[in-house]
Amino acid sequence: MVSEISALFKEIRTKRTLVHHITNYVTVNDCANVVLAIGANPVMADDPEEVEDMVSICDALVINIGTLNERTVSSMIKAGKKANAKNIPVILDPVGVGATPFRFETAATLLKEVHFSVIRGNMAEIKVIAGLHAKRAGVDSLEEEENGVSIARTLAQKLGCVIAITGKVDVVSDGKQCYSIFNGHTALTRLTGTGCMSSSLIGCFLGSSKKPLHSAIAGIVCMGIAGEMASKSLGLGSFKVNLMDSIAVMDEVICLEKAKIEPSNQ
Amino acid sequence: MVSEISALFKEIRTKRTLVHHITNYVTVNDCANVVLAIGANPVMADDPEEVEDMVSICDALVINIGTLNERTVSSMIKAGKKANAKNIPVILDPVGVGATPFRFETAATLLKEVHFSVIRGNMAEIKVIAGLHAKRAGVDSLEEEENGVSIARTLAQKLGCVIAITGKVDVVSDGKQCYSIFNGHTALTRLTGTGCMSSSLIGCFLGSSKKPLHSAIAGIVCMGIAGEMASKSLGLGSFKVNLMDSIAVMDEVICLEKAKIEPSNQ
Amino acid sequence: MVSEISALFKEIRTKRTLVHHITNYVTVNDCANVVLAIGANPVMADDPEEVEDMVSICDALVINIGTLNERTVSSMIKAGKKANAKNIPVILDPVGVGATPFRFETAATLLKEVHFSVIRGNMAEIKVIAGLHAKRAGVDSLEEEENGVSIARTLAQKLGCVIAITGKVDVVSDGKQCYSIFNGHTALTRLTGTGCMSSSLIGCFLGSSKKPLHSAIAGIVCMGIAGEMASKSLGLGSFKVNLMDSIAVMDEVICLEKAKIEPSNQ
Repeated sequence: MVSEISALFKEIRTKRTLVHHITNYVTVNDCANVVLAIGANPVMADDPEEVEDMVSICDALVINIGTLNERTVSSMIKAGKKANAKNIPVILDPVGVGATPFRFETAATLLKEVHFSVIRGNMAEIKVIAGLHAKRAGVDSLEEEENGVSIARTLAQKLGCVIAITGKVDVVSDGKQCYSIFNGHTALTRLTGTGCMSSSLIGCFLGSSKKPLHSAIAGIVCMGIAGEMASKSLGLGSFKVNLMDSIAVMDEVICLEKAKIEPSNQ
Repeated sequence: MVSEISALFKEIRTKRTLVHHITNYVTVNDCANVVLAIGANPVMADDPEEVEDMVSICDALVINIGTLNERTVSSMIKAGKKANAKNIPVILDPVGVGATPFRFETAATLLKEVHFSVIRGNMAEIKVIAGLHAKRAGVDSLEEEENGVSIARTLAQKLGCVIAITGKVDVVSDGKQCYSIFNGHTALTRLTGTGCMSSSLIGCFLGSSKKPLHSAIAGIVCMGIAGEMASKSLGLGSFKVNLMDSIAVMDEVICLEKAKIEPSNQ
Repeated sequence: MVSEISALFKEIRTKRTLVHHITNYVTVNDCANVVLAIGANPVMADDPEEVEDMVSICDALVINIGTLNERTVSSMIKAGKKANAKNIPVILDPVGVGATPFRFETAATLLKEVHFSVIRGNMAEIKVIAGLHAKRAGVDSLEEEENGVSIARTLAQKLGCVIAITGKVDVVSDGKQCYSIFNGHTALTRLTGTGCMSSSLIGCFLGSSKKPLHSAIAGIVCMGIAGEMASKSLGLGSFKVNLMDSIAVMDEVICLEKAKIEPSNQ
C-alpha cells in the first residue's frame, strides 16, 4: 500500500487538479495554501448563485461545515448534487457536527441529498455521523463500538463511502479494506485547521486519482509526515511555517521512506 | 498583582477552556491560533441558528465587531443574552466603533441587550463607547477627559464592567482598582489583529479564571510581552511567526520576569 | 519611470493612507497585512449598511470579487458609486471573472455602475473583461488579440482607466503609455493571494499618490521584487513569511536598484 500511496504524490505534481471548497472562514487561507503546496489548485466559492457552475469545472469538491449559515448550507447541497450528477467526487468534513443541532441537521440533510466519496473527521465527529445514520436508517446504535476500525468499516459499509477517522492513530476504511496510519505528531492538534487541511489534501488526491480509499490515506499520511517533519519547531508560528514547507517538498521518496500504513485485519 | 497574573498563565495550561468567538473574517485565523497557543480551545460560529447552542457549551464568549452584518449582529445579541443567562462571561471588542453609524448603533444595541465582563479597545474606540453611554444615560459628556485612567475608571463604574484601553501604555480598570501596563512594542501596531488577539486572550483567561480584572490584565500583558520577545524580527512576516511562538512558550516564569504592571492611584 | 515609481515608495511611508477593501475571505488577512507592510492602513467592511460611510473616510477602495454573494455585490456597487462621487479612486480585481456567469454578470454590473481607476487581473481575467465590454458596447471582439500590450492599451482606452495584466511579464497601460515589468518569480504563482495583495498594494499607492498609471506599476513592481527577494525560501510557508518581510523593508533604494520597468512602444 505504501508504494501505491507514494505514486499518488508523483501523479499529483504533474497534473493541475482543481479543488472546489465550500468551507469555513477560519482556516480557508490555510486550505488554499495547502492545496497549492501539494501541487493542486484551490478555488473557493460559496454562493448558491455560482457553486453549481464552479463545481462543474473542478475535479473534486470539499464540503466543510466549520462555519455555516443558511446561505452556505444551501450552496453545499446544490454543489454536492451537481458534483454527484457529474461524477465529481465529494469529500465531507463534518466539523463539530455534534456541537449544535444546526450542524447535526445540516449533516443529516447533506448525507440524505449528496453522496460522498470520503468523510473525514475525528472520532467524536464520526461517531455522531454513525449515530445519525443509525437513527435515520433505524439500524442498531453504534454507541457501544469504541474501536475505530470497527466504526470506520461499519459506517463505510452503511454509507457506501470511505470513512477516515483521524486521531493518535488514523483509521481509513472503504467498508472492506481497513488501514491504520501511524504518522503524525501531537503538535498538529495545537494548530487550527490541520483537520480541514487534511480534508483538502484528500480532495486533491481524489480529484487527481479518483481513488477514494487511496486518496484518504494519502491525504492523512501527507499531513502526518509533514507534522513529524515540522515537529522540532519552536512554537505554533514556526510549526505552521514548517508544516507548509514540509508539504511543499513532500514527494514519493519522502512518502516511501516515512509512511507508516498497516492493514487492520480486525 | 504580577504574581496573581502569572498564576493565571499556569492555570490556563492545565484546563481546556473553550472560547466561543463571533468575530471578523480578517483576523479570525489568528484569533483561533492565539487561543491554541496560550493553551485554550477556540470555536467560531456566527449564525443565529446555532450561536445559542454553541455558547452554552463554552467557557467564555468574545464578540468582535470588526466585520459585521445584519446576520452576525443578530447572532451577537442572541449569543450574548444566552451567555448572560448562563453566567458565561462575555468580552466586547468594539473594532472601529466610531467609523460608521452602523457600528455605533450595533455597539449601542449590544450594550443595551448584553452585559459585558470586559470591554477592550483602543483609546478612540473606548471614547466612543464612553460618549455613547453618556448619551444614552443622559450623563455628562466624557469628551474632555483625555486621561486613560480616568476614562477607564469612570466608564467601568458606569457600565459595571472592566474597561481595558490598549495603546502605548495600557490601562485596565474595574471601576475601583486601576492598573497601567508598560509592556508592548510598536511592531504590534504594524500587524493586523493584535488587538483582536488580545481580546481573544482575555477571553481565554476569563473563561478559565472568571476574574475579569485579572484576565484583562493577563491578556494584555501576554500580548505585550510576546511583542517584546518578537520585536527583533526582520519584518512583518517574521514578527507574526515569532509573536505566535512567544505566546506558545509563555508561562508564569516569563510573566513574573517581564510583566510591568503598576497600580494607578490617580 | 523607475525613479518616479521609487519616489512613491518614499511617499507612502510618510502618509497614513487608509484603504477600504471589499474582498474575499480567503486572502483578506494577507491583504490587510500587506497594506500595513508597505506603510498604509487597511479597513475591511462589506455590509451595505456601512460601506458608504466607510469608504467616505478612506483614500482608496479595492473591490475584489474572489468570494462574492448577493449581499457583498450590493456593497461593492454602493461603495463604488459613493467613492466615485467623492473622487476616491477605485481598483477592481476581477478574480475568476470567467469561471461563472455570476462573476461575469457582477463584473458587467460593476463596470456599468462604477468607474474604476485601475483594473488588475491575469491575462484570462482581463480578456474576459475585454470581451465583456466589447459585447456590451457592441464593438469588435478582442479574442484574436493575444498580445498583452495591445489588449491592455485597447481596453484602457475603451474603459478610460488603467489596465494591469500580471503574469510572467506584467503589462500596464493607461491607453496611451504602456509599460512592461520584468520583476517577479514563479514562486508567486504557488502562494494564494499574491494577485489580491498586488491589487491591495496598488490601492495603497493610488490612495497616496492619486496617480493610477504609476500606482499600478508601483504595486506590481513591489510584489515582483518581494517575490524575487523571497525566492530562496525552503517552501510555501517560508516564502510567505519572507515575502511579507521583504515588503516591510521595501523602500525607494531597493526599488531603484531592482525595478525592471520598460516602455512598450508597440
